[in-house]
Amino acid sequence: MVVVMKERVTTEQVEQVIAKLVEFGMDVHRSTGASRVVLGVVGSGKVDPRLIEMMDGVHEVLRITEPYKLASRTFKPEDTVISVGDLRIGGDEVIVMAGPCSAENEAQVNSTAAAVKRAGAKVLRGGAFKPRSSPYSFQGLGEEGLRLLRAAANTHDLKLVTEVMDISQIEVIDRYADIFQVGARNMQNFTLLRELGRARKPVLLKRGISATIEEWLLSAEYVLAGGNTEVILCERGIRTFETATRNTLDISAIPIVKQLSHLPVFVDPSHGTGRRDKVAPMARAAVAAGADGLLIEVHCDPDHAMSDGAQSLFPGQFDRLMAELRIIAPAIGRSICLEPVARRGWAR
Amino acid sequence: MVVVMKERVTTEQVEQVIAKLVEFGMDVHRSTGASRVVLGVVGSGKVDPRLIEMMDGVHEVLRITEPYKLASRTFKPEDTVISVGDLRIGGDEVIVMAGPCSAENEAQVNSTAAAVKRAGAKVLRGGAFKPRSSPYSFQGLGEEGLRLLRAAANTHDLKLVTEVMDISQIEVIDRYADIFQVGARNMQNFTLLRELGRARKPVLLKRGISATIEEWLLSAEYVLAGGNTEVILCERGIRTFETATRNTLDISAIPIVKQLSHLPVFVDPSHGTGRRDKVAPMARAAVAAGADGLLIEVHCDPDHAMSDGAQSLFPGQFDRLMAELRIIAPAIGRSICLEPVARRGWAR
Amino acid sequence: MVVVMKERVTTEQVEQVIAKLVEFGMDVHRSTGASRVVLGVVGSGKVDPRLIEMMDGVHEVLRITEPYKLASRTFKPEDTVISVGDLRIGGDEVIVMAGPCSAENEAQVNSTAAAVKRAGAKVLRGGAFKPRSSPYSFQGLGEEGLRLLRAAANTHDLKLVTEVMDISQIEVIDRYADIFQVGARNMQNFTLLRELGRARKPVLLKRGISATIEEWLLSAEYVLAGGNTEVILCERGIRTFETATRNTLDISAIPIVKQLSHLPVFVDPSHGTGRRDKVAPMARAAVAAGADGLLIEVHCDPDHAMSDGAQSLFPGQFDRLMAELRIIAPAIGRSICLEPVARRGWAR
Amino acid sequence: MVVVMKERVTTEQVEQVIAKLVEFGMDVHRSTGASRVVLGVVGSGKVDPRLIEMMDGVHEVLRITEPYKLASRTFKPEDTVISVGDLRIGGDEVIVMAGPCSAENEAQVNSTAAAVKRAGAKVLRGGAFKPRSSPYSFQGLGEEGLRLLRAAANTHDLKLVTEVMDISQIEVIDRYADIFQVGARNMQNFTLLRELGRARKPVLLKRGISATIEEWLLSAEYVLAGGNTEVILCERGIRTFETATRNTLDISAIPIVKQLSHLPVFVDPSHGTGRRDKVAPMARAAVAAGADGLLIEVHCDPDHAMSDGAQSLFPGQFDRLMAELRIIAPAIGRSICLEPVARRGWAR
Repeated sequence: MVVVMKERVTTEQVEQVIAKLVEFGMDVHRSTGASRVVLGVVGSGKVDPRLIEMMDGVHEVLRITEPYKLASRTFKPEDTVISVGDLRIGGDEVIVMAGPCSAENEAQVNSTAAAVKRAGAKVLRGGAFKPRSSPYSFQGLGEEGLRLLRAAANTHDLKLVTEVMDISQIEVIDRYADIFQVGARNMQNFTLLRELGRARKPVLLKRGISATIEEWLLSAEYVLAGGNTEVILCERGIRTFETATRNTLDISAIPIVKQLSHLPVFVDPSHGTGRRDKVAPMARAAVAAGADGLLIEVHCDPDHAMSDGAQSLFPGQFDRLMAELRIIAPAIGRSICLEPVARRGWAR
Repeated sequence: MVVVMKERVTTEQVEQVIAKLVEFGMDVHRSTGASRVVLGVVGSGKVDPRLIEMMDGVHEVLRITEPYKLASRTFKPEDTVISVGDLRIGGDEVIVMAGPCSAENEAQVNSTAAAVKRAGAKVLRGGAFKPRSSPYSFQGLGEEGLRLLRAAANTHDLKLVTEVMDISQIEVIDRYADIFQVGARNMQNFTLLRELGRARKPVLLKRGISATIEEWLLSAEYVLAGGNTEVILCERGIRTFETATRNTLDISAIPIVKQLSHLPVFVDPSHGTGRRDKVAPMARAAVAAGADGLLIEVHCDPDHAMSDGAQSLFPGQFDRLMAELRIIAPAIGRSICLEPVARRGWAR
Repeated sequence: MVVVMKERVTTEQVEQVIAKLVEFGMDVHRSTGASRVVLGVVGSGKVDPRLIEMMDGVHEVLRITEPYKLASRTFKPEDTVISVGDLRIGGDEVIVMAGPCSAENEAQVNSTAAAVKRAGAKVLRGGAFKPRSSPYSFQGLGEEGLRLLRAAANTHDLKLVTEVMDISQIEVIDRYADIFQVGARNMQNFTLLRELGRARKPVLLKRGISATIEEWLLSAEYVLAGGNTEVILCERGIRTFETATRNTLDISAIPIVKQLSHLPVFVDPSHGTGRRDKVAPMARAAVAAGADGLLIEVHCDPDHAMSDGAQSLFPGQFDRLMAELRIIAPAIGRSICLEPVARRGWAR
Repeated sequence: MVVVMKERVTTEQVEQVIAKLVEFGMDVHRSTGASRVVLGVVGSGKVDPRLIEMMDGVHEVLRITEPYKLASRTFKPEDTVISVGDLRIGGDEVIVMAGPCSAENEAQVNSTAAAVKRAGAKVLRGGAFKPRSSPYSFQGLGEEGLRLLRAAANTHDLKLVTEVMDISQIEVIDRYADIFQVGARNMQNFTLLRELGRARKPVLLKRGISATIEEWLLSAEYVLAGGNTEVILCERGIRTFETATRNTLDISAIPIVKQLSHLPVFVDPSHGTGRRDKVAPMARAAVAAGADGLLIEVHCDPDHAMSDGAQSLFPGQFDRLMAELRIIAPAIGRSICLEPVARRGWAR
């Protein structure tokens, strides 16, 4: 913390500020310049900067250290690479997670899983418990949905990511999924984050629609501080004044987070735009900007999806997008792989 | 829903749109104007407007009905007045809830409760379970905090409001508090809202920092739909580009919500501004704009508060604010009452 | 400027930063703490903080001095009170400026002026040159409008404020008006601001809808730096994600600007809300929060106004609002005066 | 316009609304559904929707037609391609405009122009008149700057784009530049836009930092309505709550504008991010999302630039970025060409 005093300040005012800081257990380093006194403040104590800012003679208080530690690149300079079976998230390969918004029935889950696998996705996404703004909307199939998703993932050799909304769901989801997904609305559900810190599976943590990057990394810190080092960040759009899109997908968050943190960063262009025809351009932009992966909604029959059909790609659109991404990835030294089997399937 | 077709549209395109709407169980009312076809759509079916919007020939889709029902003034034209013992929230009297951010110890809780009672507050506020952005901050006293708050409320004849962060805390808080408070970060914790819908105590529901007024009322709808008709809305600042304040307290939300809904609307100027010296002006503004009540942080010794001391008023500041509010309230036909005993205390 | 180095930094990195700062003509004051080196930087040189921030070993760069000088309370601690004839803006009296959005014809201007005078307004507002987002909207009467406004102001003993959109309009407006108004869209039209710095009449400077308070004060600085010390700031709403109002009127800007600057602060609740039925609550809130005055749209026949009728008050609504404001103003030690003649008119 | 009446409405209320609409010269088409009356409103009259919205019995008013005409794809379905000499803007080739923020001296302008030409830029950018938030910052070289820029453009066979801040500068800039640039702060300077509508040179129109896409297209409409059909739109970041970047570059605006309008869309990643190290990722993202071109700040010696050095690329960084873009462009069927001479230079 740096305390900047006003230009015309009395010695008494400076001493009162120093006394207050010392009282809170801080070491104060006084530096008298031509026009101002500046106090460098360090120490193991804790003090709310706003309290100091309101004292007489104080011009402003500047915070120094970022409040997160384990999530920062200062703490861990090299990239975190997360292994899920043979899959490596955060490495050279751009990983695509794709599937329906919600699991609806066996045929839908299975046929969508087949389609995304064929196009090159490595992880199946799909929801069994759905958070909905309105109490009158479809709320998901529950455990039956998890069963369908797991079966389809096994059949098509995909990993499975699914959303956990509440600590009461952790246990059941843990039995079916490979990766826990925490939705944007739960980014600051600290009870849930703390509990997932005790889990031993990766957590994909979406950014809240009004969360700053700092708050997002602080939420990751809750999981990391609990001992779970496998956090995947996922940008999905922030709320701005613009109404032409549901949210404004913050592509610039990708290079910023890559600089501040060692954790992998994904992008969800489906929720970030809310419209199918905007998903491909934003997915391409995300990979070009350096994202480690994508989370994309694909549905075998989007027009009859029970939720979010409007933002789900048709399988053919997803195929085409994956082909475009394979051209872009090398521009930044990355790749998007096809399994040998899938490649054969593609050729047919 | 109203579907507006493009200016140059083919008969076939119009028919495809109608067919799709009928397939979803809607009745369609076609209206052909000079330059456009407009389709009025009603019915008990459900269809995602975005799906229609992406069809050929569609210019845009306009939603008609507000998605909340029980919370709307259309559903219930007269103001909701909530009784807590002899207290009436949402009536002529402007109700002030005041107290410390967190319960810290008996002396602090008791002395603050005495101070706010003397000045005219009717409800004691204070936290026992604290949601904190950083896992390294003070997290509250838990049940011991609830015990202290209840005892102080009883001693000083105040009602008690306290925050519930998770469904696991409902039972214990129910044993101590008169009103459940749901914090801004939990405004879309639907599991919690649904559970509080089964409670038989009022719920003070804070607006999320990036929630639109519509989303806020939808969250109230979750509680109302569960059978709990006693929801108090509380504005506490929204996130904007301005950095001079922690949040931008949206005073204009007061008259808007009063128009859209029958529920009482409170304002929390402490969290809304984050700085003690801005609390009084914004509290005055809130009452002048028609708020039904206020939620204010007061601490017997703010400089040594364990959390949010910077935004807590000194007891003397709170006294003075209450005196100012008593002048303002009559301008809009309201009052802020003093108990007979308190009035005597004031005179001494 | 304070340069905070990273925790693990080499001596060479620190020296390179110091060398760069010295090259830009700054004095550097090095302060070595337990875990970090912090550099206090002062001097008459100029350096872009972002340039330093990108150097190796630098953690972050914190700016100290506010970039505006003449507009700050540090520079001039006492309130600025602006005299326009016998009117004092920024003193104990809350000054209300009211009138139609645009001058349309003699009858409309005159009848509206009579109505606002009778209710207690001291300044007539009205536009002759209108900035419109669409090239197809009504663009104002031009000089003929100015003539009508001046005549009505004279007849009813009111001062006149009107908007100047471009330097080419300064001369003609100067012949008719008492106060220049700069609209929100022109808040950063620096050519215009510089030119108004040479004028010898007060400038009412509206805040841009996306301007921070700091940028707003910097725009005031352009006028002040030109030698014109009479700037009135006017809050009129900022753009946020909320769509229930046209803009979010930032009432909290009032106490903040009063603290940072000595200039008077007004509020325009008509543009800030965009709807007639929200004007009175927000006008009351503004006065309760400490505004020095209000700018309100009133029209003798709002339903037939050529622009912004929806946000214009009927004369009767304005009367009633003024009566409410007279109750509120004393709560903060202010008054809203009625002329003796007007008072008689009111009694009849 | 569609007027949606409330659910419980009287016949009289409906008739009053219809009467008011007819009075304003509109044709009304009444449609009575199961639970509501909906009025379709067309006609050549003009009526402020907010006026209708405030009438008794009205639930809400929905606007239909986009308020811009000439800028819309409905008006002109095929892409606009703008020719500047042999250059085609908006065609298959992605066009890069690059150069220093400000012209400072002959050596700087010339050496930067040589560098950007060699890397594949087709247009030289650079400012002679600078809009600065603070009156104390460097304000540009004026006409001398234009002379330097024109000379360098000629020497290196580049076109020239430069900013016009005020109508008084149009004539002099017209003598030197090939393309007028309108800055973000002037996006709603309607006097300037109207005047540029009479010019016969392309106008590159930056989006205001708080402008919606609709407002941006309306500003383009001002130029188009004046008879100048050559408008290039340029996204440069919008203001959001996030403070980790100066602005949030809205990459999603690219596909949206391409859908709504036929005009070419550029992106300025330099102003959009404010930091050199974020320019390349965002430039790649823009091209991947479908931008027709880029506007990039490059400086031969960024550390000593008189303005915006922190966001200017070194020539070597620009070379590398152009190479990456050449890989990405084909993914969306575009190219980024090198002149034969430049290609030779590159090989050396």
